[in-house]
Amino acid sequence: MPPHNFNELRTAIRAFAQARDWEQFHTPKNLVMALSVETAELLEHFQWLSPEQSTRLDDQTKAEVAQEIGDVLIYLARLADVLDIDPLQAAFDKIELNALKYPVEKSKGNNTKYDKLQ
Amino acid sequence: MPPHNFNELRTAIRAFAQARDWEQFHTPKNLVMALSVETAELLEHFQWLSPEQSTRLDDQTKAEVAQEIGDVLIYLARLADVLDIDPLQAAFDKIELNALKYPVEKSKGNNTKYDKLQ
Amino acid sequence: MPPHNFNELRTAIRAFAQARDWEQFHTPKNLVMALSVETAELLEHFQWLSPEQSTRLDDQTKAEVAQEIGDVLIYLARLADVLDIDPLQAAFDKIELNALKYPVEKSKGNNTKYDKLQ
Amino acid sequence: MPPHNFNELRTAIRAFAQARDWEQFHTPKNLVMALSVETAELLEHFQWLSPEQSTRLDDQTKAEVAQEIGDVLIYLARLADVLDIDPLQAAFDKIELNALKYPVEKSKGNNTKYDKLQ
Repeated sequence: MPPHNFNELRTAIRAFAQARDWEQFHTPKNLVMALSVETAELLEHFQWLSPEQSTRLDDQTKAEVAQEIGDVLIYLARLADVLDIDPLQAAFDKIELNALKYPVEKSKGNNTKYDKLQ
Repeated sequence: MPPHNFNELRTAIRAFAQARDWEQFHTPKNLVMALSVETAELLEHFQWLSPEQSTRLDDQTKAEVAQEIGDVLIYLARLADVLDIDPLQAAFDKIELNALKYPVEKSKGNNTKYDKLQ
Repeated sequence: MPPHNFNELRTAIRAFAQARDWEQFHTPKNLVMALSVETAELLEHFQWLSPEQSTRLDDQTKAEVAQEIGDVLIYLARLADVLDIDPLQAAFDKIELNALKYPVEKSKGNNTKYDKLQ
Repeated sequence: MPPHNFNELRTAIRAFAQARDWEQFHTPKNLVMALSVETAELLEHFQWLSPEQSTRLDDQTKAEVAQEIGDVLIYLARLADVLDIDPLQAAFDKIELNALKYPVEKSKGNNTKYDKLQ
């Protein structure tokens, strides 16, 4: 079986929504709310962990976190689909912009936001 | 040029972080917070729009929304990378689970959450 | 019984945390994550509703929404407490700032963000 | 001057919205999105801080955080107002529920979620 790719994911989610007649609910406004809810469910797993604990999850938590990452990606892909935006292209474009906002010489070892970088 | 894929994205983000010595900041706890912040910046574009307006963004807003989608995907890919989780696999696994939670015959045209489905 | 006030709430939450020896978990970083999680649980109730539906909740949903509003306020009050910030004073100060950012004559019937107001 | 109270805040926000003819935008669905956005702006200040750093903010950051806490409280109070929910009462009711979900003897020094408490 070939590895999964993003187009395949978009197609699978689209079919899932169509089979359930859910396209009526999938406005961008609703989908971005669903994306926020799923992101918070992912966040919830980490809220009481120390940063160090967050780097070594037990197997049960890791499996639950993987499911939440799946949910976030599903809603992100669905939102991008209904908006006719290519999320991978958007990410690569943003990396180029970030390289300009965070030049290596100024940002090295430094997490200051670009608008406060000197 | 071949189309972008997820592995390529992960590699590009990893290189970006390494070049800036930012791996020290990239704990899962911190990254999931950054993901939440970017998701909310995406949400912000839609907060005062009607659902109908959200389906037909002007070009300027669509370009800004694409950038935020890029940011969300970047942090999601980075979080998955440091956790050693394959986000595409996680999404496909979740679609299978969702198909069980939301059988077509019960969910058709119905946005009720699975734990309240009859 | 006199009506509840904010100081009373802060005191009750502080006592709740102390009795359970939870102060060790209540760093601002952790509390702001918990606040985000509760806010998303509130958001979840509205994700698939139309704006119009969101104005007339059934009794069951309204009761659940009230609980989530309670949770959000609890974590906001607790966060403000550990940071030694007075949230009511902060809100009144912010209203004054907002009055400058959104002058009535420019903002009337207009939800444009202040940095794009003409 | 008497100390501020919640009713006064609700009244001030209501007047602010009315003067700008913003009631048309203030559906619960829109307001809960705005609340989420403000919560994330608060979260953003803490994303790269260690838990320990988050307990000792510099004066500039503390002032910015106070403003964001003000914004979160404004939108929470406004949302509760349009839903005709008393947020302080909701918080006290929730504390009572939480006392049942998290009995002192089981929760002492333990941040386990109630549904996993033994």
